[in-house]
Amino acid sequence: MIKKIIFSTLLFTSCFVAADTESEIQKLKDTSQNSLLAYEIVASLTREVGPRIAGSEGDKKAVAWAEAKLQSLGFDKVYKQPVRVRNWSRGLADASILAPFEHQLVVTALGGSVATPDKGIVAEVVMVDSLEDLKTRSVEEIKDKIVFINKRMERDRAGRGYGPVVIGRSRGAIEAAMLEAQAVIIRSVGTAQSRFAHTGAMQYNPEVEKIPAGALSNADADTLEYMFSKQQPVKMHLNVQAKEHGWQTSYNVIGEITGSAKPEEIVLIAAHLDSWDEGTGALDDGAGVGIVTAAASLIKSTLGAAERTIRVVLYANEEFGLVGAKEYAKANAEELGQIIVAAESDFGAGKIYQLDTRFASDALPFVKELHKHLAPLGIAEGTNTATGGPDISMLPAKGVPVVSLRQDGTHYFDYHHTPNDTLDKIAPDDIQQNQTAYAVFTWLMANSAVDPRPAPALIK
Amino acid sequence: MIKKIIFSTLLFTSCFVAADTESEIQKLKDTSQNSLLAYEIVASLTREVGPRIAGSEGDKKAVAWAEAKLQSLGFDKVYKQPVRVRNWSRGLADASILAPFEHQLVVTALGGSVATPDKGIVAEVVMVDSLEDLKTRSVEEIKDKIVFINKRMERDRAGRGYGPVVIGRSRGAIEAAMLEAQAVIIRSVGTAQSRFAHTGAMQYNPEVEKIPAGALSNADADTLEYMFSKQQPVKMHLNVQAKEHGWQTSYNVIGEITGSAKPEEIVLIAAHLDSWDEGTGALDDGAGVGIVTAAASLIKSTLGAAERTIRVVLYANEEFGLVGAKEYAKANAEELGQIIVAAESDFGAGKIYQLDTRFASDALPFVKELHKHLAPLGIAEGTNTATGGPDISMLPAKGVPVVSLRQDGTHYFDYHHTPNDTLDKIAPDDIQQNQTAYAVFTWLMANSAVDPRPAPALIK
Ligand SMILES: [Zn+2]
Ligand SMILES: [Zn+2]
Ligand SMILES: [Zn+2]
Ligand SMILES: [Zn+2]
Repeated sequence: MIKKIIFSTLLFTSCFVAADTESEIQKLKDTSQNSLLAYEIVASLTREVGPRIAGSEGDKKAVAWAEAKLQSLGFDKVYKQPVRVRNWSRGLADASILAPFEHQLVVTALGGSVATPDKGIVAEVVMVDSLEDLKTRSVEEIKDKIVFINKRMERDRAGRGYGPVVIGRSRGAIEAAMLEAQAVIIRSVGTAQSRFAHTGAMQYNPEVEKIPAGALSNADADTLEYMFSKQQPVKMHLNVQAKEHGWQTSYNVIGEITGSAKPEEIVLIAAHLDSWDEGTGALDDGAGVGIVTAAASLIKSTLGAAERTIRVVLYANEEFGLVGAKEYAKANAEELGQIIVAAESDFGAGKIYQLDTRFASDALPFVKELHKHLAPLGIAEGTNTATGGPDISMLPAKGVPVVSLRQDGTHYFDYHHTPNDTLDKIAPDDIQQNQTAYAVFTWLMANSAVDPRPAPALIK
Repeated sequence: MIKKIIFSTLLFTSCFVAADTESEIQKLKDTSQNSLLAYEIVASLTREVGPRIAGSEGDKKAVAWAEAKLQSLGFDKVYKQPVRVRNWSRGLADASILAPFEHQLVVTALGGSVATPDKGIVAEVVMVDSLEDLKTRSVEEIKDKIVFINKRMERDRAGRGYGPVVIGRSRGAIEAAMLEAQAVIIRSVGTAQSRFAHTGAMQYNPEVEKIPAGALSNADADTLEYMFSKQQPVKMHLNVQAKEHGWQTSYNVIGEITGSAKPEEIVLIAAHLDSWDEGTGALDDGAGVGIVTAAASLIKSTLGAAERTIRVVLYANEEFGLVGAKEYAKANAEELGQIIVAAESDFGAGKIYQLDTRFASDALPFVKELHKHLAPLGIAEGTNTATGGPDISMLPAKGVPVVSLRQDGTHYFDYHHTPNDTLDKIAPDDIQQNQTAYAVFTWLMANSAVDPRPAPALIK
């Protein structure tokens, strides 16, 4: 066993990493630790473009902004890949309790919701604990009512509170409509105790009637919950004026630093360019755009091109179902095998605390090399079961190795998908650590002979 | 010196405090520490009534609610005192940057602002650091512009950051109009880095043109500030549709527990019933209403009447210039001399950490007695220079002794005067400590022979 480790160590020291790696990495770290480039990129995107929901004017501006930004930052190639997107607009949303006490609520439409009739609807509210609870109810109980799914999200560094709650957001309208409800409202999928409602995508089922869907702020969900303590019928007025505007063309925007020795081999680092419409998409996902763009740009300006090509992909329309990412995988199907590794930053700007990989076993010794350089940034060793960020989540199944540079998401869901997702939520120190980590990781992967392909299969 | 202290101690032990005080206080504390009455009162007010700006329907509901609540809590006398109030409504407010980059901003009207023309105004923005800075500018520079007062409030436990900044809110429109500005907007007077704008009262001067006045959220003030870094003219669209609706009658609502031995001597504990219109006035000042009402009610239910009368005053219209408090002082002018002491709770629900008094020197030994019973609640000795809460601030000049039970206000200005001032910002433990402290203080003052009158004069 000891022999094997020593052998591996020798192997990767001699084969994977060029002799001058140490000094290059040090130079890159020094540059990054004196640069706020990632922060400045997010500042520019959030303030000069602002919100950029897929297919909107803001989205078009964001695409032009991204092309110009990548060009100005010294990428060798900048190009776009068209993506057809549905354009949906939120419009006004208004909710108030009429009985047992009148009370105005803060509500927002879920992304993709249909509208109510012009003047809204008035109906009795049925409160359920969760989507699972809703599924146990009968048509008699739910018919013509507004369903209120009152499940609270738990705070967690890794965001593990999201999955169990977001299912109510995405599938609530389907399950409620199957029981003939008029509409569904959910307690926001968010951890802040505040008066911001959290939006996010929801789904319909072509077999089931489409009913309007909204989210209440946590503070207002508390208020609605309180009304039920009075043992009287709870009546609500709900008005959602969301609209579909048909199809538009958006773009994945791509910047490359061409590899000096093996340009056909690609290290792909990604984020998504679109955002929801109410905030300015600073944490989701301006931060990712800033981090991966800055990491590549700082490599170029500090060390020049790596042996492999570094490709930054800023995906279109992540929010409505990974549309840009799916298009990328389709349009680039032939070339996916040339991706050495893919990583996406899409979890805010909290410090990275762990690196997970999904590498072929031959390449696992190289993970030690990665960790040697990432440990001083406070990044611990993780597992080899990474699945990557949302836009690269379909790649491991095609054999593409991925990593997850896991960020501290303790406060991410305080702001996620709300008007309060703005630049001031990003600590310059934190995003700088992300920038440094991505730069170091990307350089090590792009300038070594390691080959983590093919990614081990996902075990369901 | 030592002799004098011993003498004083004997004096207050024998004269000020009845023999069974210890056990009474213990009983009161035990009851309070098992009661969430203050919290429940705020929950009822904020959810069953909600916002209650002076003269509004909500205000009328709040008055009816307060009468019913005091009656149900066993007060011996419940009555109202009419107060004439102006009714103002916020209406829509909308602000966007047009150049150098288009950006939608979160803005709210300051309380009392006039409206812009129907479609708003478009003007170049001049940024100043503070009201003092504005005063140094010339008409040439300011004429026809929108003035942006960009002064940030500092966080402080005692709220000392408020005074230096709020002057820009209250007097900004006057100073800007004197320089012929079209409008004034301020960085919110608030400590949260968030997307809520903080409203609050502003003033006009009959000699000077009235111009519209608004506040930007801190996040949006950051964005506007950023625009100035581009060295290009900053242009803005501002629309404020606030309205005056003339005079209405509101009420100070008063509840008393009649004194058993000296009913003509009054221990007055107060809060204000009105609130701003966007939140539900939980911290400002539902908390105060809950604290003083619960304190008096728990005294009655636990120990019965005290020797002196305990009077709970829930003032009308604090927010637009202490209107209810001024009316109280006028209508009760003859009787002010009978007030033994007055205290107001109007700084949220943070734990009380210090007791300040304004007592005649003869009564200072009794402050030791107060502290003996308050210290176990974590309340330290303060000074004898208290000025009381806003609605009792005019009483010391008339010789009425006041105290300040000083609350931890570290987070008060995160929510103050925003839509986010809701019940969830109150920690049940914290408001319970306030309730206990007010109950203990009120009982000790109402059931002893101490006479702190007249209050020492204020030294300017
Ligand atoms: Zn995202
Ligand atoms: Zn998102
Ligand atoms: Zn107040
Ligand atoms: Zn106030």
